Amino acid sequence: MSTEGKRLVIIGGVAAGMKAAAKARRESPFMKITVVTDEQYISYASCGTPYFIGNIVKDSKKLIVREPPYFKNMHNIDVLIKHQATAIDTESKQVKVRDLAKGQDLIFNYDKLIIATGAQPIVPPLMGISLVNIFTLRTISDALKIKSFVDSGKVKNAVIVGGGLIGLEMVENLVLRGIRVIVVELLDQILPPLDKDMALLVQNRLKEKGVEVITSDGVKSFEGNGTVRKVITGKRQLPADMVVLSIGIKPNTKLAQEAGIEIGTTRAIKVNERMETNISDVYAIGDCAESIHLVTGKPAWIALGSTAAKMGRVAAINVTGGNDTFKGVLGTLIVKVFDLNVGKVGLSEREAIKEGFKTESAIVPAGDMAHYYPGTKDIIIKLIADVTTKRLLGAEIVGEGVVDKRIDIIATALTFGATVDQISKLDLAYAPPYSMVMDAIIIAANVLNNKLSGKTLGILPQTVAEKHNKGDDFVLLDVRTEAEYKSGHIKGCRNIPLDKLASRTNELDNTKEIITYCRGGLRAAQAYRILKNAGFRNVKYMDGSILAWTSELEV
Amino acid sequence: MSTEGKRLVIIGGVAAGMKAAAKARRESPFMKITVVTDEQYISYASCGTPYFIGNIVKDSKKLIVREPPYFKNMHNIDVLIKHQATAIDTESKQVKVRDLAKGQDLIFNYDKLIIATGAQPIVPPLMGISLVNIFTLRTISDALKIKSFVDSGKVKNAVIVGGGLIGLEMVENLVLRGIRVIVVELLDQILPPLDKDMALLVQNRLKEKGVEVITSDGVKSFEGNGTVRKVITGKRQLPADMVVLSIGIKPNTKLAQEAGIEIGTTRAIKVNERMETNISDVYAIGDCAESIHLVTGKPAWIALGSTAAKMGRVAAINVTGGNDTFKGVLGTLIVKVFDLNVGKVGLSEREAIKEGFKTESAIVPAGDMAHYYPGTKDIIIKLIADVTTKRLLGAEIVGEGVVDKRIDIIATALTFGATVDQISKLDLAYAPPYSMVMDAIIIAANVLNNKLSGKTLGILPQTVAEKHNKGDDFVLLDVRTEAEYKSGHIKGCRNIPLDKLASRTNELDNTKEIITYCRGGLRAAQAYRILKNAGFRNVKYMDGSILAWTSELEV
Repeated sequence: MSTEGKRLVIIGGVAAGMKAAAKARRESPFMKITVVTDEQYISYASCGTPYFIGNIVKDSKKLIVREPPYFKNMHNIDVLIKHQATAIDTESKQVKVRDLAKGQDLIFNYDKLIIATGAQPIVPPLMGISLVNIFTLRTISDALKIKSFVDSGKVKNAVIVGGGLIGLEMVENLVLRGIRVIVVELLDQILPPLDKDMALLVQNRLKEKGVEVITSDGVKSFEGNGTVRKVITGKRQLPADMVVLSIGIKPNTKLAQEAGIEIGTTRAIKVNERMETNISDVYAIGDCAESIHLVTGKPAWIALGSTAAKMGRVAAINVTGGNDTFKGVLGTLIVKVFDLNVGKVGLSEREAIKEGFKTESAIVPAGDMAHYYPGTKDIIIKLIADVTTKRLLGAEIVGEGVVDKRIDIIATALTFGATVDQISKLDLAYAPPYSMVMDAIIIAANVLNNKLSGKTLGILPQTVAEKHNKGDDFVLLDVRTEAEYKSGHIKGCRNIPLDKLASRTNELDNTKEIITYCRGGLRAAQAYRILKNAGFRNVKYMDGSILAWTSELEV
Repeated sequence: MSTEGKRLVIIGGVAAGMKAAAKARRESPFMKITVVTDEQYISYASCGTPYFIGNIVKDSKKLIVREPPYFKNMHNIDVLIKHQATAIDTESKQVKVRDLAKGQDLIFNYDKLIIATGAQPIVPPLMGISLVNIFTLRTISDALKIKSFVDSGKVKNAVIVGGGLIGLEMVENLVLRGIRVIVVELLDQILPPLDKDMALLVQNRLKEKGVEVITSDGVKSFEGNGTVRKVITGKRQLPADMVVLSIGIKPNTKLAQEAGIEIGTTRAIKVNERMETNISDVYAIGDCAESIHLVTGKPAWIALGSTAAKMGRVAAINVTGGNDTFKGVLGTLIVKVFDLNVGKVGLSEREAIKEGFKTESAIVPAGDMAHYYPGTKDIIIKLIADVTTKRLLGAEIVGEGVVDKRIDIIATALTFGATVDQISKLDLAYAPPYSMVMDAIIIAANVLNNKLSGKTLGILPQTVAEKHNKGDDFVLLDVRTEAEYKSGHIKGCRNIPLDKLASRTNELDNTKEIITYCRGGLRAAQAYRILKNAGFRNVKYMDGSILAWTSELEV
């Protein structure tokens, strides 16, 4: 297809839109390319805005990658800021655009149209929602407003509504600015994409950092005199000089919907692998577009800048006569929460069960480097597998050590449908400053493999805690040293150090269920084997043990 | 198979041997397990020894993971140190062992035998090789000797013979101890597994750190009066208070060979996926055993602790009646060289060409985090692909930024035979503290994809340097700003800044070959497109540009 003289119109000028524009120009020197956006800024890094507010990124200009004159001069791309697309006529192939500055309506004819209208924060219609200093954070303009208010020095107390990724990034950056922060989350855990056991590790760390975390409580209204002063929840009243609403986002699909473009089951715009909508010559990309989850094969809507950029490239290649496909996403996420790195890829155990998988999982703490190399830090890995196929379904990792590397290894493995066994055999880079001789992720895969093959019987800390709370009758056996035991143990446990266990099995009641635990699970698994070999039938070991235990310890 | 009462004998007590012993015990509580080793120390981390010598790991005990009493008490495994296996009778299933302390010969009957005899440094029979203070580094004992000599404070000058991984780790750690270090390498580059263009980046950094690097020169003899004083090479005489020989290692196969066990084409012991040798009930694992290269499908011998541990597990499962397989390796390596991280996985371009692949490659510098996030550092990625199948064959990465993560992503991708296109679509973890919105490895894959599909025509810096040296007639076009140009450029180039190029194409001779370059390749690629669109036919852009340029610059 010759694209000479053809007109490409792109609605939206942030990640997906500008990536598509630049790539389309590289593919086609002569196509006429026009980008319209209702915003003032284009091509900016919205993911960096929390760090701008936290003064980690000092200059907002650093977040704005390019401005319109650059695109005109360098790439002959027309970028019209403050121009809002108000209607698409897919019959006559026209976009109606309002010049917000002049108040004029313009008509743009297109041969190819790319919709990259993004998403917007959900703002619930609560009483007091219009009070001053209740913010959402999505655009550069949002960030400038929040930053300038924080800079004023008037903020003592902030309430973050919603404990998701943006919420937690805001928590850290506001604490860095000396503000007392409370997080309110409606669900019974923060970080909803994670399983509760892993999310609790993060929640506990937040508390250690002086952040109050309220779960299972929803915001009912806001109070104040012009400016917000109080957040009223179902159970509490919280002081607040500012509020950041981060309860979620929704795709901007109104324009598409009104033009008769099909919306998917996720409520984002439905597209095929080529990023084509149901209407000929109309494409959708970025946060407004649906995708496929590569683990489930089902539609998924996971708005991320990294996905937007990839979709933008694919659409650009296709609108300029090429052929490229985007197969889908894995829900990969990573977030820094103070000194913790928190990542997830694929399905959580809860999500996997909901999808109908019969799951097995393991929680495995391990070092991120050789144990003797200075600076080694722990990470706690949860792997979730499908019992039937032994295929890995997902991973969640939390720790001060290097998490993102292991998440990306699993992201790559999940893309190719790897089994747990295949992951345990990966030839990963090994040298003491980078990894243990068996990388943490390989150790975790081995532990899960043992459980999958029935060689060991592990039990998750969360399940033990529930049994405990229910008052189940079982022996909880702490096999650490006496000194470790005394420094803090789980209430109601017995302590028999591992090296004494073989000679003291007679002290244990073979008629009862025995659950072993240690610091990270290794000695617990050894104790499990000693007891099994000694003829105990009803034995389990606690995955991850104390390192993954999220309830109180007794001293 | 019941393993009760069966006898497992393991020859070798370092990584592979002890891993196999421990795993075999977990698989089989009642098998009789005996490990014999001629060394004094077992279960130690030989990869950590350079860092012990450099005082980064302070205590040698940290490198010794376990000692024999631990294995006896905890796992009922008999570990006989200073016991050398001298013969294997595979008919009568016996191993003859010499107790080195008592001078006695013992006979051990086995039902299953695992050979884990490791490898040893190659020591060439050069004149003066027996002089005091000429070391090799392989065992803990070696490390203790070197450390104690360095601690004596008598070492001013050290010569490292061989610029491979161990050699370079020793360079860094001896420099850290205040020693002047010279590296002598027979080949025309250090780090032989890497392509020369990437190895030169490391070589230049070594020079910046005050290390003299001599290539294409071989050691002929050593001189001294009892202790070494001089290293005599083909072209030079080098002062030396100590020498570390690190020209390579060879597998310890004599014992196996004499027992009629088949040796592979790589001269290591031939094994199948189950780690079985050609002789029934005899297994070989670790540095003495051959493997399969997962990219070529051919036998490969790449001795690494991480591989040894995996092989040990597989053999342990199989000797205890289970069934596990080890499919092969990717030659994955990572090494820290001062502030550079240097990694490789799969085939280098040189290796790929030698294997008969028609290759395309790209050298792409990119940031390891979001450009605006503090602490972002560059890494330089070389990707090598098969032109026919578009499958990735290998990657080499050098830089101060995070290299190991991208190596591990590619290791995982190569395991599943990924194409370059599949790598460019991976859903990798993105947040500003961890990655650019398109991860560096995705950007590199996109650049290579463009080259593979003929959309762009890149040329490697090394090739440009060769054309330069040959006196080829071509235009070398620096498209950076005038200030950048003045701070250092390639001799004989012309400077037309990118933003002026479109209006100044008339200054260029369309009959000549034009090669564009900039700092990292991005603007060079843009200039390439401007010139192509302006009708220039013979244009290329220099991959990686100045960041990957390893020759001198002119100011």
